[in-house]
Amino acid sequence: MSITVVGSVAYDSIETPAGRRERCLGGAATYFSLAASFFTGVRVIAVVGDDFGPEQEAIFTRKNIDTCGIERAPGKSFFWEGSYLENLNEAKTRSTELNVFASFEPKIPDAYRDSDFLFLANIDPILQRRVRDAMPAVKLVAGDTMNYWIKDHRPALLEVLKGLDVLLINDTEVRMLSGNSNLVQAARAVIALGPHVLVVKHGEYGATLFHESTPKGKKAELRTFRAPALPLKEVVDPTGAGDSFAGGFFGYLASQPELTPAAWRHAMYYGGVMGSFACERFGTERLQQLSRAEIDNRFNVFRELTHLD
Amino acid sequence: MSITVVGSVAYDSIETPAGRRERCLGGAATYFSLAASFFTGVRVIAVVGDDFGPEQEAIFTRKNIDTCGIERAPGKSFFWEGSYLENLNEAKTRSTELNVFASFEPKIPDAYRDSDFLFLANIDPILQRRVRDAMPAVKLVAGDTMNYWIKDHRPALLEVLKGLDVLLINDTEVRMLSGNSNLVQAARAVIALGPHVLVVKHGEYGATLFHESTPKGKKAELRTFRAPALPLKEVVDPTGAGDSFAGGFFGYLASQPELTPAAWRHAMYYGGVMGSFACERFGTERLQQLSRAEIDNRFNVFRELTHLD
Repeated sequence: MSITVVGSVAYDSIETPAGRRERCLGGAATYFSLAASFFTGVRVIAVVGDDFGPEQEAIFTRKNIDTCGIERAPGKSFFWEGSYLENLNEAKTRSTELNVFASFEPKIPDAYRDSDFLFLANIDPILQRRVRDAMPAVKLVAGDTMNYWIKDHRPALLEVLKGLDVLLINDTEVRMLSGNSNLVQAARAVIALGPHVLVVKHGEYGATLFHESTPKGKKAELRTFRAPALPLKEVVDPTGAGDSFAGGFFGYLASQPELTPAAWRHAMYYGGVMGSFACERFGTERLQQLSRAEIDNRFNVFRELTHLD
Repeated sequence: MSITVVGSVAYDSIETPAGRRERCLGGAATYFSLAASFFTGVRVIAVVGDDFGPEQEAIFTRKNIDTCGIERAPGKSFFWEGSYLENLNEAKTRSTELNVFASFEPKIPDAYRDSDFLFLANIDPILQRRVRDAMPAVKLVAGDTMNYWIKDHRPALLEVLKGLDVLLINDTEVRMLSGNSNLVQAARAVIALGPHVLVVKHGEYGATLFHESTPKGKKAELRTFRAPALPLKEVVDPTGAGDSFAGGFFGYLASQPELTPAAWRHAMYYGGVMGSFACERFGTERLQQLSRAEIDNRFNVFRELTHLD
């Protein structure tokens, strides 16, 4: 089933211990779409500037990603410059230029309206809410956010959380959002805000899924599942690893006939798999060149990394 | 098969967000022994002072731990006072009194000399080396260390590493020891110093086993296995979690007829299981009251937490 994703399509200049790249195609919606495209049909809602041409568009269309929702606006695309020289686990932002993104008003193409899955990548919660409300018939909505929105746009973010099935955030964000430093207590607090599934990403340590379920006639219980990350010999560029995780996770879910407990667990592993590939080269290079066979092989590596028998 | 462990038996005064306890029985050898005692016979080499009486000794003997290697010296036992109020993941030491431990000269009882497994808990590497050399016939030797020895006693520590089969340390220590911030590269560097198996503990994120193996006629390869930690609703006291991990890990290995790859993987899970119990109450309270059935139940929880099917 198709996923519609709304988020940024951007240019990134990135410096890591492995080197430097100028103006790679990036943005949360780009990483998410590429990762999810190996599992299901993907449709993108974003805005780009005059600097986004046929070469960039082909990165999407080669993966059969629907780009009719990528709006062209006069001016330049969103630009981010960051460095991982001090800490590979956390980017230091050197420069952010919103450009055409500053006045982004997401428009949903009619052709996208039958999407069953909706992913709200990390953008202004007011826009996330607007897209969510405009697609009331979707079966599953997942979303991401970041420290900036949690800290300074809390009321708008809380409105978004009410309409989410799944929230994907990292350790720092879940603690900031809940005001609680214990992961389990923090997860319960976030789930009480709306999403019934919470995925907390732990960077190089993997990710944990928390799922509130109420077995018949019993008290609600919090089920947990932990997927590993792959210990990598070299992390070339961690940019987009979290969005690639989300793409693999949500793309796999959207490809399944039914959202069984096993489907959620496999989705967590596919999330980890796509996140690990994203780190192996700069920008989206690795995702662009990836084959489904490589994904399946790495899935097996993840299984061997964690399974007893 | 029996394990001999050399290390500290001490008193700890501990403050955590859950409360405060004065002079709990602690020390690496205590946590290790209690955790390992659920799997195999354990023999302790340590030194204590006049403040260690029959009540403390019974904590060991009730678990059939052999205490004939616990030497009594005039004076007070090793004492440590620490706080986790600021950070549950890292103790802030308020006071350390070596007392009788300052002149510890490990003596190996004759009855211990047929031990097949030896664990060198975190003490002065010169003493670790002495015990290792005095027991040349053991089948498997594992050891622990800490930042202090890595930083200021490196030559002595390097001598110990040459005689180890397994080293268990945490993330910070493996990076400090190798001078490399990438976990995989750091693991390779540490394995080149002696131990063919390295276990890196990641605190609340579990632990990774690195195993250098050379399949017939092939290049040496680094195999990895990752065990989770259990997300706990409340961490009452993390003191001794790493030593309890080591006890569960090494105790399980010592109980196995053969050290197959599956035995190493199960050992990692049992390490995580014992570490999780240790955190649930102050000091060794939880380990003292634990049953084998509870251990097996939690092992199954760990399996469900990570396994796809």
